[in-house]
Amino acid sequence: MQAVITAVGPDHRGLADPIVHSVTELGANIAEIQMYDRDDAHVFSMMTRIELEPARYADLRDAMVDVSKETGLSIRTWSPDLPKLENRKPRLAICVTYRPETPLAVLRAIRDGRIRGEATVVLSNRRKLQGVAEQFGVPFRLIGDDAGEPNDDAMIDICDELSIDYVVLARYMRVLPAASCWKYAGGRIINLHHGLLPSFPGMRPYHEAYASRMLAYGATCHFIVPELDAGNQIINQSTYSVLPGTSLDEVVRRGQEDNEPDCLVEGVRRVVDNEVRLHFNRVVAAHSVG
Amino acid sequence: MQAVITAVGPDHRGLADPIVHSVTELGANIAEIQMYDRDDAHVFSMMTRIELEPARYADLRDAMVDVSKETGLSIRTWSPDLPKLENRKPRLAICVTYRPETPLAVLRAIRDGRIRGEATVVLSNRRKLQGVAEQFGVPFRLIGDDAGEPNDDAMIDICDELSIDYVVLARYMRVLPAASCWKYAGGRIINLHHGLLPSFPGMRPYHEAYASRMLAYGATCHFIVPELDAGNQIINQSTYSVLPGTSLDEVVRRGQEDNEPDCLVEGVRRVVDNEVRLHFNRVVAAHSVG
Amino acid sequence: MQAVITAVGPDHRGLADPIVHSVTELGANIAEIQMYDRDDAHVFSMMTRIELEPARYADLRDAMVDVSKETGLSIRTWSPDLPKLENRKPRLAICVTYRPETPLAVLRAIRDGRIRGEATVVLSNRRKLQGVAEQFGVPFRLIGDDAGEPNDDAMIDICDELSIDYVVLARYMRVLPAASCWKYAGGRIINLHHGLLPSFPGMRPYHEAYASRMLAYGATCHFIVPELDAGNQIINQSTYSVLPGTSLDEVVRRGQEDNEPDCLVEGVRRVVDNEVRLHFNRVVAAHSVG
Amino acid sequence: MQAVITAVGPDHRGLADPIVHSVTELGANIAEIQMYDRDDAHVFSMMTRIELEPARYADLRDAMVDVSKETGLSIRTWSPDLPKLENRKPRLAICVTYRPETPLAVLRAIRDGRIRGEATVVLSNRRKLQGVAEQFGVPFRLIGDDAGEPNDDAMIDICDELSIDYVVLARYMRVLPAASCWKYAGGRIINLHHGLLPSFPGMRPYHEAYASRMLAYGATCHFIVPELDAGNQIINQSTYSVLPGTSLDEVVRRGQEDNEPDCLVEGVRRVVDNEVRLHFNRVVAAHSVG
Repeated sequence: MQAVITAVGPDHRGLADPIVHSVTELGANIAEIQMYDRDDAHVFSMMTRIELEPARYADLRDAMVDVSKETGLSIRTWSPDLPKLENRKPRLAICVTYRPETPLAVLRAIRDGRIRGEATVVLSNRRKLQGVAEQFGVPFRLIGDDAGEPNDDAMIDICDELSIDYVVLARYMRVLPAASCWKYAGGRIINLHHGLLPSFPGMRPYHEAYASRMLAYGATCHFIVPELDAGNQIINQSTYSVLPGTSLDEVVRRGQEDNEPDCLVEGVRRVVDNEVRLHFNRVVAAHSVG
Repeated sequence: MQAVITAVGPDHRGLADPIVHSVTELGANIAEIQMYDRDDAHVFSMMTRIELEPARYADLRDAMVDVSKETGLSIRTWSPDLPKLENRKPRLAICVTYRPETPLAVLRAIRDGRIRGEATVVLSNRRKLQGVAEQFGVPFRLIGDDAGEPNDDAMIDICDELSIDYVVLARYMRVLPAASCWKYAGGRIINLHHGLLPSFPGMRPYHEAYASRMLAYGATCHFIVPELDAGNQIINQSTYSVLPGTSLDEVVRRGQEDNEPDCLVEGVRRVVDNEVRLHFNRVVAAHSVG
Repeated sequence: MQAVITAVGPDHRGLADPIVHSVTELGANIAEIQMYDRDDAHVFSMMTRIELEPARYADLRDAMVDVSKETGLSIRTWSPDLPKLENRKPRLAICVTYRPETPLAVLRAIRDGRIRGEATVVLSNRRKLQGVAEQFGVPFRLIGDDAGEPNDDAMIDICDELSIDYVVLARYMRVLPAASCWKYAGGRIINLHHGLLPSFPGMRPYHEAYASRMLAYGATCHFIVPELDAGNQIINQSTYSVLPGTSLDEVVRRGQEDNEPDCLVEGVRRVVDNEVRLHFNRVVAAHSVG
Repeated sequence: MQAVITAVGPDHRGLADPIVHSVTELGANIAEIQMYDRDDAHVFSMMTRIELEPARYADLRDAMVDVSKETGLSIRTWSPDLPKLENRKPRLAICVTYRPETPLAVLRAIRDGRIRGEATVVLSNRRKLQGVAEQFGVPFRLIGDDAGEPNDDAMIDICDELSIDYVVLARYMRVLPAASCWKYAGGRIINLHHGLLPSFPGMRPYHEAYASRMLAYGATCHFIVPELDAGNQIINQSTYSVLPGTSLDEVVRRGQEDNEPDCLVEGVRRVVDNEVRLHFNRVVAAHSVG
């Protein structure tokens, strides 16, 4: 089976060695290592993807707990095959802020079985969409203060506590810090961007495309990969065309109400159904990986 | 009615004055003037859009012939309202090179009445698609030499001789020189670009989008506007999405066989049906122009 | 001599004709016309560059005053040859906000005769640099409210009232509205951008170049041209290189204290000395224009 | 001391484990691992940077030879500290094609002691600059066929055979394949690009900047890093400014004859003098690395 180990620490000394030792002692093969020294932020990070016998997964997890205790590193072990092994649905944390369309679409798709996952929690930096979570009987957890500033550590703590498999950013309006991205690296954070990547990466992609007088618009569902601009991690892209003379309001309305929800639901489905995987920072069709 | 006058000459002296004089003497109002001094190519150009009484259109044309004779400038007079006034369909010159899909789609749409125009001529710098023209009974005119180098002046001469209203570039593989663009300026040259503008303007837009691992592709039908990158002159954009793992060949096949033809046919229809106009280098819905 | 006429009005009807009539009646030749319909802002604009006998310049100015009265259009007449004809130095309005380095450099260069112009007024949306103006005995005019919001019409009124030839934006931190750009179109508004154009057009060019780990930085002095991104209107560019490991603070310090002032002073000098002109939206060496 | 191990193989199985085992058995600490699966080219690659006792370097080299024999992987061991340890100058391979200015400048700087390295060999895919090598008494090796197509494996074989420390691409006109870049990864391949990166990455940076009517030009000396566009690996950038109206020929002449040679010589000097290092794909000042 495939397993993913992430480690985050304050410097780049002594990070790789204990993890690499443990992994090889368990007879696992290293398939991929990504390391990064974000020295300006004092975040040193590593993501290791390995192949090991399913019977050794528990040992791996225990070993990593030990390494974490000994070194003080923040370490996580996970596998995309866990839900199947544990005979359960993948657990999703749905992160939201103001716009209700995409979280509603994901919650409905889960309820109707189109996304074969569990809506374990709705996280938000604002109270606005608490009612949406309650409507579907999903616990709501506020991670923002009165000004909407999120407690990024609280987000990770909640996901850890609830054994979340995938974090879904459904028009969540804050940027995850690099440390959070690394902690859930390896294809576990799914974002919905309301423009076509890589052409329109900004905060206002509808406005930018409209300013270019484009007649085609789109949304992009992609994995968040730390330290990289999202160019190669696209899971799904949905598009629509409008007539000349269409107002920006109408463009945005069609995008937010129809296109974005469809884009995110299909993207989450592909991930939850294990149709796609992250492989050296690129999305690949799962069946194509050796 | 609206009329468009284009003038091209070897320098910028004495170009504007005689045209402006004639226009104002006829009681017309100047709605738009675009001038450009492409000094490195010794091409000086002007496009004038005016409003005048339909009864004076013939006088305008005669006056411009006189100005042309006196000054040696290359001058053309035209109106998008001409076909209606002359109780005829708009005349189209379809320019092609190798790919048959988009010209075939336009010829079929004309035959079936979906594009209410006349396929007056098929122009090409290569003989390859001569059979496509013959299949629809449309005259074929070769404007290229043995190496496929086009005679750009011959293209314009043929369009002049046949009183062409619109030049349709259906995957025509050569760049029109600035002088040709100016001679048929004012919204008369329609191009099909096989990528989404303005994001993918290059010669190989499928390859470039694929290299970015995009999952959405598109085509753009736009007016050619001299001296400007095509950013604001979009008439129609069509898109399609593919699954992760789709091969480039399959992406290109779907684009060339399905998406590009649909994009161009709808774009030409919008122009021929006077649904869109070029207004200060931007496409506007015709009903929105005062 | 060359003269420039600018006209701004609320719609595109009836703008061009009266100006064109007057110009041709005076025996002038039209060298360039730029028109633009910024319909979304209800600003219709025209810039006309003409050649006429110096003896007729006063008549032209009077005629334009008449047209303005009759039509309600906002019309201005100007010539880069005026200071010479009137045996005076070009009058400069120096627009500033917070940073003192570039205005100080321009004021010193004027005092020392390196820029052969007159510092007629210092305009600002903030009071901060009032002392700089006073230090050089130049009148200071505040055009901002308590929040620093500028009164754009007041800026133009002051420039009109003082017969300003050139408006110098010396790290003036507000964007001029399109109407102001048109009113002083034709190569009269000189801006200092603190990054290399066209590569770094944003608000924080030092930060953006630094984020790319560049080791070369620069500033750009350019004419402001309405409706166009500043790509072709570069008057002067100055650059400097730094060693690997140089801090952003040090990069910015060298740029602001040394490079930007040098760049702007030389740029203003080239304009004031008539070494460069704006010709069809591009800067050309003055001697190269026919 | 710091050591760099690179490994290239045909797939991603079994690549990392034997190297990681050997390294940790030698008591070395892993400082950085970069892995990449260029699956479309069947090139799997790894670069490992480690810290180990200088006394163990010979053991490391032997161990890697053994791993290479057992696994069939192409493995190289190197250290930027080797020349000092072996009491010799760094050995440079200077790769050239047509333009003589930059190789001449490097050869002169080596002769004059400004670059404290040894010009071990001049490599070229063309014979044109053979005389330049001979003039400085440096062996010349042709790696191109009659059409100038380079034998990329021959280039690597020669560098291996001559124990080259640094490969200097002095306007070498061919793109190194990914496998070559990986084999000499870790800050050993120095390129001179004749434009400012990242703004002008193309084949004709002078022409592109000139088409934007820029008045500042530059060159960039940078490490080649496989799989990444060169954005963060800049070692040196040199710039110059020109007056409006300067011809493209003059711009290119000043760049090729003065600016590019200065840029490359100073860049090579910084590397050879160990002033800069590559650290997680970014250039850092050597003293700043912990």
